[in-house]
Amino acid sequence: MVKVSKKRSSKAGMPAGSLIHIGEKKVDKIKIKLINYSEHDFIEQDIKDIEQCFEYKDEKTVTWINIDGIHDIEILSKLGDCFGFHPLILEDILNTEQRPKIEDFTDYIYIVLKMIDYEKNLKEITFEQVSIILGKNYLISLQEKPLDIYEPIKNIIKNDRSKIRKAGSDYLAYLLIDSIIDNYFSVLENVGERIENIENKLVSNPSPKTLKAIHNLKRDMLFLRKSVWPLREVISKLERGEISLIKNSTKIYIRDIYDHIIQVIDTIETYRDMLSGMIDIYLSSISNRLNEVMKILTIISTIFIPITFIASIYGMNFKFMPEFSWKWSYPVVWVIMLAVIITMVIYFKRKKWF
Amino acid sequence: MVKVSKKRSSKAGMPAGSLIHIGEKKVDKIKIKLINYSEHDFIEQDIKDIEQCFEYKDEKTVTWINIDGIHDIEILSKLGDCFGFHPLILEDILNTEQRPKIEDFTDYIYIVLKMIDYEKNLKEITFEQVSIILGKNYLISLQEKPLDIYEPIKNIIKNDRSKIRKAGSDYLAYLLIDSIIDNYFSVLENVGERIENIENKLVSNPSPKTLKAIHNLKRDMLFLRKSVWPLREVISKLERGEISLIKNSTKIYIRDIYDHIIQVIDTIETYRDMLSGMIDIYLSSISNRLNEVMKILTIISTIFIPITFIASIYGMNFKFMPEFSWKWSYPVVWVIMLAVIITMVIYFKRKKWF
Amino acid sequence: MVKVSKKRSSKAGMPAGSLIHIGEKKVDKIKIKLINYSEHDFIEQDIKDIEQCFEYKDEKTVTWINIDGIHDIEILSKLGDCFGFHPLILEDILNTEQRPKIEDFTDYIYIVLKMIDYEKNLKEITFEQVSIILGKNYLISLQEKPLDIYEPIKNIIKNDRSKIRKAGSDYLAYLLIDSIIDNYFSVLENVGERIENIENKLVSNPSPKTLKAIHNLKRDMLFLRKSVWPLREVISKLERGEISLIKNSTKIYIRDIYDHIIQVIDTIETYRDMLSGMIDIYLSSISNRLNEVMKILTIISTIFIPITFIASIYGMNFKFMPEFSWKWSYPVVWVIMLAVIITMVIYFKRKKWF
Amino acid sequence: MVKVSKKRSSKAGMPAGSLIHIGEKKVDKIKIKLINYSEHDFIEQDIKDIEQCFEYKDEKTVTWINIDGIHDIEILSKLGDCFGFHPLILEDILNTEQRPKIEDFTDYIYIVLKMIDYEKNLKEITFEQVSIILGKNYLISLQEKPLDIYEPIKNIIKNDRSKIRKAGSDYLAYLLIDSIIDNYFSVLENVGERIENIENKLVSNPSPKTLKAIHNLKRDMLFLRKSVWPLREVISKLERGEISLIKNSTKIYIRDIYDHIIQVIDTIETYRDMLSGMIDIYLSSISNRLNEVMKILTIISTIFIPITFIASIYGMNFKFMPEFSWKWSYPVVWVIMLAVIITMVIYFKRKKWF
Amino acid sequence: MVKVSKKRSSKAGMPAGSLIHIGEKKVDKIKIKLINYSEHDFIEQDIKDIEQCFEYKDEKTVTWINIDGIHDIEILSKLGDCFGFHPLILEDILNTEQRPKIEDFTDYIYIVLKMIDYEKNLKEITFEQVSIILGKNYLISLQEKPLDIYEPIKNIIKNDRSKIRKAGSDYLAYLLIDSIIDNYFSVLENVGERIENIENKLVSNPSPKTLKAIHNLKRDMLFLRKSVWPLREVISKLERGEISLIKNSTKIYIRDIYDHIIQVIDTIETYRDMLSGMIDIYLSSISNRLNEVMKILTIISTIFIPITFIASIYGMNFKFMPEFSWKWSYPVVWVIMLAVIITMVIYFKRKKWF
Repeated sequence: MVKVSKKRSSKAGMPAGSLIHIGEKKVDKIKIKLINYSEHDFIEQDIKDIEQCFEYKDEKTVTWINIDGIHDIEILSKLGDCFGFHPLILEDILNTEQRPKIEDFTDYIYIVLKMIDYEKNLKEITFEQVSIILGKNYLISLQEKPLDIYEPIKNIIKNDRSKIRKAGSDYLAYLLIDSIIDNYFSVLENVGERIENIENKLVSNPSPKTLKAIHNLKRDMLFLRKSVWPLREVISKLERGEISLIKNSTKIYIRDIYDHIIQVIDTIETYRDMLSGMIDIYLSSISNRLNEVMKILTIISTIFIPITFIASIYGMNFKFMPEFSWKWSYPVVWVIMLAVIITMVIYFKRKKWF
Repeated sequence: MVKVSKKRSSKAGMPAGSLIHIGEKKVDKIKIKLINYSEHDFIEQDIKDIEQCFEYKDEKTVTWINIDGIHDIEILSKLGDCFGFHPLILEDILNTEQRPKIEDFTDYIYIVLKMIDYEKNLKEITFEQVSIILGKNYLISLQEKPLDIYEPIKNIIKNDRSKIRKAGSDYLAYLLIDSIIDNYFSVLENVGERIENIENKLVSNPSPKTLKAIHNLKRDMLFLRKSVWPLREVISKLERGEISLIKNSTKIYIRDIYDHIIQVIDTIETYRDMLSGMIDIYLSSISNRLNEVMKILTIISTIFIPITFIASIYGMNFKFMPEFSWKWSYPVVWVIMLAVIITMVIYFKRKKWF
Repeated sequence: MVKVSKKRSSKAGMPAGSLIHIGEKKVDKIKIKLINYSEHDFIEQDIKDIEQCFEYKDEKTVTWINIDGIHDIEILSKLGDCFGFHPLILEDILNTEQRPKIEDFTDYIYIVLKMIDYEKNLKEITFEQVSIILGKNYLISLQEKPLDIYEPIKNIIKNDRSKIRKAGSDYLAYLLIDSIIDNYFSVLENVGERIENIENKLVSNPSPKTLKAIHNLKRDMLFLRKSVWPLREVISKLERGEISLIKNSTKIYIRDIYDHIIQVIDTIETYRDMLSGMIDIYLSSISNRLNEVMKILTIISTIFIPITFIASIYGMNFKFMPEFSWKWSYPVVWVIMLAVIITMVIYFKRKKWF
Repeated sequence: MVKVSKKRSSKAGMPAGSLIHIGEKKVDKIKIKLINYSEHDFIEQDIKDIEQCFEYKDEKTVTWINIDGIHDIEILSKLGDCFGFHPLILEDILNTEQRPKIEDFTDYIYIVLKMIDYEKNLKEITFEQVSIILGKNYLISLQEKPLDIYEPIKNIIKNDRSKIRKAGSDYLAYLLIDSIIDNYFSVLENVGERIENIENKLVSNPSPKTLKAIHNLKRDMLFLRKSVWPLREVISKLERGEISLIKNSTKIYIRDIYDHIIQVIDTIETYRDMLSGMIDIYLSSISNRLNEVMKILTIISTIFIPITFIASIYGMNFKFMPEFSWKWSYPVVWVIMLAVIITMVIYFKRKKWF
Repeated sequence: MVKVSKKRSSKAGMPAGSLIHIGEKKVDKIKIKLINYSEHDFIEQDIKDIEQCFEYKDEKTVTWINIDGIHDIEILSKLGDCFGFHPLILEDILNTEQRPKIEDFTDYIYIVLKMIDYEKNLKEITFEQVSIILGKNYLISLQEKPLDIYEPIKNIIKNDRSKIRKAGSDYLAYLLIDSIIDNYFSVLENVGERIENIENKLVSNPSPKTLKAIHNLKRDMLFLRKSVWPLREVISKLERGEISLIKNSTKIYIRDIYDHIIQVIDTIETYRDMLSGMIDIYLSSISNRLNEVMKILTIISTIFIPITFIASIYGMNFKFMPEFSWKWSYPVVWVIMLAVIITMVIYFKRKKWF
């Protein structure tokens, strides 16, 4: 199950601007990777000391600094001091329960978004907060857990085939965001398959477990939606052209991302509607089964209670009961009983209970 | 059932702008047809090699290129290169899970919409993505499966009766879109008939199958709605006059399409409300039937249980039971039993259970 | 039941602008009436040939042409040609499944709205589409079935008491629309009465029929709403002052109509909420009755099953049962049975089941 | 129960501007009171003939004319003629089923709102329509039934303590509206108490009456809401500063009223949500009780049906039944029966049915 | 339970601007604390007489006056007179049932918001209204009950470490509001834990108490929402830059608060959705249990009723029943009975009732 906001309150009562990591610590050692490229050059470096990065700050080539592990406050502080980031940005990076948002500081923009993944072993959707700081010639990406999507992007840059080498840091930002959103589709496809599975069970053999599964999916959709809706606003802001760091040639690609997000939202809403419909079917199937149970009980009772009564009549011990000594009593009673049974069966047949 | 988004994720991790066909391959051979017309001339050609089309690119007459089958990436690439289309457009054409949208590139506009059809054999609504690229003097329409609606339009152009020969490519675009939307009405009429059928069953003989049918229709409405709502924005953009390729004289026709779409949306919403109401009726009819079943059980039980008790009293084998030897015991017991039965029947009559 | 969109599709595949009557043919002979008035004159004429009207086209006096029966395409064509109406207007007049709308063509405006009526014999609400074309000095009203509301308006004009003679054609349009909307109130009052009737039944004797009646009303509200909401936009457009044909002095009257429509919408929404509440009451009354039925069954069963068991004990035929030969066995068994009965009755009394 | 719109249709078919009183006649004799005040003077008069008022029309002092009883069309006509009111205003005053609204005629503004009251004897909320016409130096208030709130306002003016004497007629209008809205709070408090009462019953002893009471409250909220929502727009218009008759110094007080209305709306919405929740609780409590009933029936049945079967075995009359003549049969049967009973009791204990 | 609006009506009928305390009196003695600071100085004083404060009114240093206990109207009046506050502000401070709002009087702004807390002993959320009046060089905070959050803020100011000493009164206002909103997170975390607890019970052992708990939480969310939504508008107004008292350097911090509020709203909405889903699960679990109960009853009945009937057949006392004297009758009857039992058990196994 996706957890509800936790530990956020540990900050209550502290001076604003205090740097505290809110969230789970997922890696032990912080790993910093630096990639610097221009049309003709490509440098890739594993960085031990964050200060090594600072020399690239004012170079004209594009520098991409990727930091896996954000719980080390000291490193963040140094980074912030060197690049001149507003203290609130550092606070936001550390707080992994941010909503997706974008903040424009003219010289650089700060973007928060959520990477999602479906963990097959845990059978749950995981959220990883990604912070992107985009400057004129640099891009810094920060997250607690290393992401799989960065490797292919690095390869694209390295192999020089793509136009990315000529494009600026804003195109790199586009590539990152696009990869992250592409992952939403994978997760949604997986959800789609789970919905289909549940649907089949709903028809063949509904159980309280089925309901539980539907509700878990519904809750997943709730949390997904919570992280996609604000993302839409973020991308819309990037696209509208108010932000000077995004070049016009990149904007058409941003618009493409925007279309993807709309499609993600559409799919989430559709899934929500489908899941609601499935709950209705589940509930009505329970009612239906109650009806079936009651019909069986009623058929058995209405057939046997009357004939048991007839038998019990002749179980009485009165001395003066003429039927006792009449020779044909016993077969006649059987005939009556059979008549009752046949009448009842016809009645239920007509009511279409069989 | 309408499938939920599939294979979209096959693209995750690939460089943006990679051309991949997402969707089902429905035709084997790609068929290209070219129609070129002006007030006085009309040429119709089946094209084998897409390059044959390119000579018409700069002619003043209106050229309509229709391509059935979009899975051949090479043909699309050539087309895009010749006409100078933005690579994202080619990507969008290939991805058959686009939302309806419109993109204005000043020289040409790109429109995506969904053709819908009700397949009687499959008993389901099918969606076919249609891409339209409208330039000053040409219109290119692309879809995977050939559409029935193009033949009548071709005939209108050919037979010279209509004003279309004098009008430009924007009027041709109007005709195409109008035909596509007219099909929505056919499908909705069919849905309307299915709703009526289900309603009759709902009254005469509701079953879990009826509920399933209602839910299937509800889901169809969900998917229809998903493809009509964005279409509304598309047409609204065309009509508002921001797009220079659409002439003023054509705009009033576009407004007419807009009215039709609003009507389609209205009908979809009405159907959704009606279907929701039908689920209510279904559920309450199940409850009603449970009530009926329980009433029968209760009537039988409350009549026979007490009189069976009376009979069982006199089935006891005590030596000292004065009633046994009394002469009128048996008839008196019958009288008492009949009294109980009559009382009960009157009671149920008063409660209006019969 | 109000029918869902029909025959709209018969037009699919025809060239745009083709004139086809969509809807039911309600009158055999088309009747055209012409009224021409100025401050001092008043002419009323039954017209045989539509061409007789055309001489009034350019007169300064106000001309009101009312046409009952719109299925004759030829008459409409002539009318359109003479007055120079856009072909799409003629198409819209013929299609009786339009949404209420307004189109401003500077020289004239075209208004579509729905006249509603409650047919007491059919017990259903009927919709009649009314088209109004308002020019500087003329007003043309078209509908398939003659409307009752035109007679009183004619009388007001004729009897010269009112200010209408001095006012222009826009004031006449106001009068027509006002009369049509006043009818909405009559229909809603009737609906209000039906709601009250159902409510009484809901308390005294709810049955599946009651539910059916509620649902029919709910559906009626659905269709009413569908025709009133767009009407609101129509009137709002008239009132906002963008349309030059409406004089300022008339605008305050249009605002009055607007208020009425808002009130109609309010009432429809209130009715919808009330009807939803009534369904809740109905469903809970079914549950309540099930409870009642089950209580009776349970009371009877829990009283008689135990005592029947006691009786059956002494119906056993063992040779060595000391109770058989004991003298007071029989009365003691009766005492025990009565004790069981009394205990049970007290138990149910405490549970407040009686 | 609050009645749904009535008699509104009696106007259908009459010329617009016809003066007809729509609503209940609540007082026999119309009472007109005139108060005229300036910083130094205060005149209070009961008026017999409306024409007495007209001399105050052009004085600089503030004149407040209060009319209780609006069904006399003649008086209204005279008033309208003297002050030069637009005929539609008179029509609106007479139609007591108006929505709250404001109309600005530059020289004067016309405000309609609803006074609400909870009638303890009838146990229902009553609505009284109040019309206020505010001119530069006069204010005319009209309603069918005398209102309690006017007396305290008169006293405030009279006792000269307040700043009202120096302020203009717009401040007087503020005082009137403020008093009327203060009454909404009284009614809502009363509703709050009723909700609490019902809630207690819901826990202790829910019955169909409780449901009825919840639904009545829900409907009351529906009607309250209907008269408060448009009021919000009215006050918002007054506050926004488009109306020249409202001085800037008064506007801050209007803003205060606006806040109150928002609070009223908030409370109504909260009550609606609470009432919906209460219906859920009610329905689930019915289901719970059904469960309880069924448990009792099942416990009794599953205990006694098997042991009755055992007893009936030995009630058979076969000649060759070895148990009959065995000495310990009878006690052994008792032991078996007790074993069945104990097993069942343990089973139900485990299932936590006791 | 959170109480619904109370005593608000005690004001009905009084002149506007009358000062009356609406709400609970929570402290006996009013406590006034004054803090005055600039970059270099820091004064902290407990004030006995409100007039002591007034000397700081025109100083350039920042003065923070905190008043715990607002029910003393005299003190408020003096304060209002000295600082020149509009009378409506004093009224609003006294009325503790205000909605959060902001009023800009150019020289000073008035902000109302709600401090919330979860009282563990009462197991309920408490609301405390906080009024903040922010001037160019002063800030006055008023509430009925002393708040815990002020002490840490005082310490931050005192210890000179922070930038607050250099910043103006607007930054102080930011700190106060930020602390108040941080408390919302604590309360929501607590709610989150309660939701998890209930969820576990919902799976293991649902009871009517669980439903009650869910509904109480739902209602809490209702009231929380009611005080957070308007807060959003308040902060949005502060941030948009229309208010001149807020410096640009402070605005970025206000934006941070705004983000927090959006997050609070998001969480509340998520909780509401989750609670609604839990009600669904609860209701379906009741239905499920009814099904279980009915299955047991049906199994027992359908097995024992038929075999009891067989036994009662041979309990009849007819003289001519051949089976009686047949030697193998008794064992054959047992075989038949066992056959019935086995058939039934197989039937129920197939229906998967065990």
